[in-house]
Amino acid sequence: MYVTWVEVVVKEAYIDAFIKACELNHLASVQENGNRRFDVLQDAQNPSEFRLYEAYQTKEDAMAHKNTPHYLQWRETVADMMAVPRQGRNYKGLFPR
Amino acid sequence: MYVTWVEVVVKEAYIDAFIKACELNHLASVQENGNRRFDVLQDAQNPSEFRLYEAYQTKEDAMAHKNTPHYLQWRETVADMMAVPRQGRNYKGLFPR
Repeated sequence: MYVTWVEVVVKEAYIDAFIKACELNHLASVQENGNRRFDVLQDAQNPSEFRLYEAYQTKEDAMAHKNTPHYLQWRETVADMMAVPRQGRNYKGLFPR
Repeated sequence: MYVTWVEVVVKEAYIDAFIKACELNHLASVQENGNRRFDVLQDAQNPSEFRLYEAYQTKEDAMAHKNTPHYLQWRETVADMMAVPRQGRNYKGLFPR
């Protein structure tokens, strides 16, 4: 399992719009080949902070996500909502196997 | 969905032992009431860095995990493996609903 953890901080005015854009991305992404998780999280203390937890069977499946219409649409929609550039980090999923 | 993200750094000599302890914790935790995910991740660049991604239906389900025999066993087993104290942070899972 190939995991990407993305840290996002949005401008406060865009919190609701960001959630809506992420819902659309989530709904389409979980139907991709190899997708295992596409969870959208909101910080319990700071509602303008979000995390995306994206897990795919393989790295290739994760890379293919970047070329999907829904990802490209999401990226364009949220570009101006970011308070700071978003940060991604990759992990190897050990369990579940 | 109530999510806990735990950041762990272990001493290098304990990498394999930590993975084994986490496997046992994972296998038992995914059978708990309300568990949605209990993923064990290893940093792609730094093999002594791990993340636990724990998602439960409710906060109460997550709290109940802390009283299970397998959690208490894991906590005792890994205590001396930590290079620095582990850090946990909580999130509200927005999607999946």
